[in-house]
Amino acid sequence: MSGVLYGVGLGPGAPDLMTLRAARLIEGAEVLAYPTLAGAASFARSIAAELIPANVREIVMDVPMSVARAPAQAAYDQGAAEIAAVLDQGQDVVCLCEGDPFFYGSFMYLFARLSEAYRVEIVPGVTSVTACAARAGLPLAARNERLTVLPGPLPEAELRARIEGAESVVIMKVGRHLPKLRAVIDDLGLTEGAVYVERATLPEEVVLPLAEAPDTAPYFSMILLTKGADPWL
Amino acid sequence: MSGVLYGVGLGPGAPDLMTLRAARLIEGAEVLAYPTLAGAASFARSIAAELIPANVREIVMDVPMSVARAPAQAAYDQGAAEIAAVLDQGQDVVCLCEGDPFFYGSFMYLFARLSEAYRVEIVPGVTSVTACAARAGLPLAARNERLTVLPGPLPEAELRARIEGAESVVIMKVGRHLPKLRAVIDDLGLTEGAVYVERATLPEEVVLPLAEAPDTAPYFSMILLTKGADPWL
Repeated sequence: MSGVLYGVGLGPGAPDLMTLRAARLIEGAEVLAYPTLAGAASFARSIAAELIPANVREIVMDVPMSVARAPAQAAYDQGAAEIAAVLDQGQDVVCLCEGDPFFYGSFMYLFARLSEAYRVEIVPGVTSVTACAARAGLPLAARNERLTVLPGPLPEAELRARIEGAESVVIMKVGRHLPKLRAVIDDLGLTEGAVYVERATLPEEVVLPLAEAPDTAPYFSMILLTKGADPWL
Repeated sequence: MSGVLYGVGLGPGAPDLMTLRAARLIEGAEVLAYPTLAGAASFARSIAAELIPANVREIVMDVPMSVARAPAQAAYDQGAAEIAAVLDQGQDVVCLCEGDPFFYGSFMYLFARLSEAYRVEIVPGVTSVTACAARAGLPLAARNERLTVLPGPLPEAELRARIEGAESVVIMKVGRHLPKLRAVIDDLGLTEGAVYVERATLPEEVVLPLAEAPDTAPYFSMILLTKGADPWL
């Protein structure tokens, strides 16, 4: 009997926003897996840190910083092979994922490589989308309102077109795209009411009107345009 | 000092998919609040049931079944007044919400009534969106893909227009709108690959290709059209 690969969502950052199921799986884990970027510390691992048992084995997939896809593919290929070897011995592997594994998560790259040959269980997590809304005090969508999630790296023209026809909009992965996003939102007359959130639920969290946001944003930042959400009944 | 109103997301249904923070707040609660629909049992309360302390006070807002808004408004007005009276005495109130309070949640109606006068803290929860994706084994969005969330009650023409231009689409609140949604999805040639999920993560969960879905769907059901999500790197 092969082991089970668990893709475990850990939520947006505050350790107590992980689910009871995620906590139980981590506390009982013998083998953990997670990616790192160019040797930097893993955000996912930091969320789970307090619960990680001593003597656990950790499979670290270090993804090099590169525009080319091949080096990252090689890192996931090698990680998948290491995980498969553990599963083949009947042992489970708990893969740590910030947020939710199937919502802009790198766990998908392992899922694609391993889900045909092995049992994979996804433990959904609180996404940064609802965490940012919670921290900003901004309802996202009610009744028959629509919600659109857009990644910040999209081209300016596409962002403009998608935001213009939308109700509530959430823009993920703001990072270095902040100036472009500001220009689009300004042009559309939506800066008033737009909210910038950085590292939601962590001690270093920032929540500001977009107009007062800093000039540089980290990858884990978001802009909320919730013109559609009407919390009144 | 007034008490704090906590809007606590409980996740999609499986009790262990609530967050550690939600569990701690419920276990320590002296006063709970939640809405019911026409006297039916509360789904949110059922998720939390195992953790609810004995002798807790429960403020139940029973919302009558009615097309008119006024009766529901009156129920929330009265509930908000009861909650305010507790907060005024310096006691906290924990409001139970299935999913996430700011994502199509009725907690917003209390938030609108009470957030100006009282401290309100939102505890985000796992939404049915990522829970359904997890159970269906369908990644929602990766890299620069967009995600669109549409409520099933929207008019047919709007649904068609919104689905046509989208990548990954999630249709919430399918319920009695299933035949209309099927017709739109068929017309757009998207039935192959469409997945129907009902009561995700509960023992009575149903996950089926849309083509094999039953003829009637409950309110807590969803259709996933994830044509955009490519889990490969």
